[in-house]
Amino acid sequence: MAVENREEKLIASIRKKVGASSRRVRLGIGDDGAILESPKGSLVATVDTLVEGIHFDLAYWNANEIGYKALAVNLSDVAAMGGDPLYALVSLGLRDTQENGFVEALYEGMTPLLNLFEIDVVGGNIVRSPQSTFIDITLLGEVNDQWFTRSGAKPGHILAVSGPLGESAAGLRCLQKLGREAREFFPAVTKRFLTPMPRVRESRAVMETGSVSALIDISDGLSTELHHLAASSGVGILVNEELLAPSEPLKQACEYLGLPTSQMFWNGGEDYELLMAIESSGIHEVRTALRLAGADLIVLGEVQAQSLGVCVKTSSGLVPIKAGGWHH
Amino acid sequence: MAVENREEKLIASIRKKVGASSRRVRLGIGDDGAILESPKGSLVATVDTLVEGIHFDLAYWNANEIGYKALAVNLSDVAAMGGDPLYALVSLGLRDTQENGFVEALYEGMTPLLNLFEIDVVGGNIVRSPQSTFIDITLLGEVNDQWFTRSGAKPGHILAVSGPLGESAAGLRCLQKLGREAREFFPAVTKRFLTPMPRVRESRAVMETGSVSALIDISDGLSTELHHLAASSGVGILVNEELLAPSEPLKQACEYLGLPTSQMFWNGGEDYELLMAIESSGIHEVRTALRLAGADLIVLGEVQAQSLGVCVKTSSGLVPIKAGGWHH
Repeated sequence: MAVENREEKLIASIRKKVGASSRRVRLGIGDDGAILESPKGSLVATVDTLVEGIHFDLAYWNANEIGYKALAVNLSDVAAMGGDPLYALVSLGLRDTQENGFVEALYEGMTPLLNLFEIDVVGGNIVRSPQSTFIDITLLGEVNDQWFTRSGAKPGHILAVSGPLGESAAGLRCLQKLGREAREFFPAVTKRFLTPMPRVRESRAVMETGSVSALIDISDGLSTELHHLAASSGVGILVNEELLAPSEPLKQACEYLGLPTSQMFWNGGEDYELLMAIESSGIHEVRTALRLAGADLIVLGEVQAQSLGVCVKTSSGLVPIKAGGWHH
Repeated sequence: MAVENREEKLIASIRKKVGASSRRVRLGIGDDGAILESPKGSLVATVDTLVEGIHFDLAYWNANEIGYKALAVNLSDVAAMGGDPLYALVSLGLRDTQENGFVEALYEGMTPLLNLFEIDVVGGNIVRSPQSTFIDITLLGEVNDQWFTRSGAKPGHILAVSGPLGESAAGLRCLQKLGREAREFFPAVTKRFLTPMPRVRESRAVMETGSVSALIDISDGLSTELHHLAASSGVGILVNEELLAPSEPLKQACEYLGLPTSQMFWNGGEDYELLMAIESSGIHEVRTALRLAGADLIVLGEVQAQSLGVCVKTSSGLVPIKAGGWHH
């Protein structure tokens, strides 16, 4: 592929910022491809893209937040497989008006996550995109003998998440309404939307318990992910409404927005928490593993027979849950 | 990352078309990530993007040609490293007006190359891109103990390419001038532009000779790639103008276009031929290996000391070559 003029100018700068230095990288950015030490276990590979106007809006996003989030959503996919991330390949589509400073800020935004999880950027492609900026990241990692899928949940297993839901979606709506100032007035929820912490360590920790039968990251909203899990595992799910306590930051943001917390909670999306089915005998061990990794275990309900469907138990009886997750 | 509505509808169709079935794929498209057998040697990773309006124009491109070429340019990068391609991850950015048929045609276009090189598509991300379509592919492959770089050329080594240059750039200009009809009048050059054959087998074949000291694929045009090779290896290069014979299809197209063949040859780009520095003792063996793999060895000149620069020997003396490759 033709190398862009600006790419040549940028490569030195990017290399300095995130250039692979670990011994497992045998040849990094700068040639036609990277040569990497092959993982000893199996390879896990994920890819995800953020597009301007769809996934981010330059009116209230900073470049470093875009870089951070593009990496974070990929890391969340690796976490959903139970993988240990190793290598990132980054493709940027840039408008002509975007300066090199934009790209540098974008890479700066990735740096905390690159350092935290010891990831090497081993590919950095830049192309012109006349209308809208995009950033596409492929993440490569390692899994050992086992990995998570969506398909192992069985009736009787406990259903739980690794943290509060709905805050991210509320954060987006605060930003849409208030612009950049939303960061000041609603710091917790806007942070959850702009710079979520992917649950990589938490996923690795709960895998060691051997008690998690199915796992998925919540990107599309709880209601949709429940259906993904149920369909893949061939089961039904019963959520207990009493267990769905909205967090304080979510309540405050929803009060301002004039929206019910349940809408954000059920259908908001972009939570990037882990949704798990857990064998009931292992629930204590999973809770301890999550706490040690810095997250909570919030029980939502349980897995039931497929014939019983995906439902919520409310004070007025059982109500079927429709998949209503957030579609960009 | 949020899954798009249309993505869910398309996954079944794409899976049918290119769904990984080889034993090395432990978990293919459909979960948050793929689980893959780790290559026994080192991993080679490349990424490349085609953007509508920059790299392709829907006025005269068919969707299957876009799919083909997006994969071909990545394969050419793997060839430039001497790798054996194994896995592809495909990210699509689609305009709202593009039907599922567009995506299916795009994947159909990849199929011949996927089959020829036994590649599994293990990731298939689709997002909305409001203004311009894009396709971004990450290709993963394997190299054994050795791989090609741009940095091993030494004074006295022979400089050669694996096939005729300039045809692709002439094909593009014919398409820009004549639209789709150019395919009929200039079939050879338009085919070279739209559906180039990446030199994967040729690269593997010449690696076995042990006589190629540096290798690069010609994507940016000969003049630019000569400078890439010279800079990486710390050498100069002398090209003999007498050896630069334009092909018949190039001559015919340039006559119609009213352009000198040398412009296409030197600066056209997107040839996707291999540019090699070869130890002179191994030239016969490299030629034989290339012929067996179905390509030619065209000698262009030789590597010289860095202080002598990158020059062409013409009938009127030595002329410095400027990097003037095609920038999109």
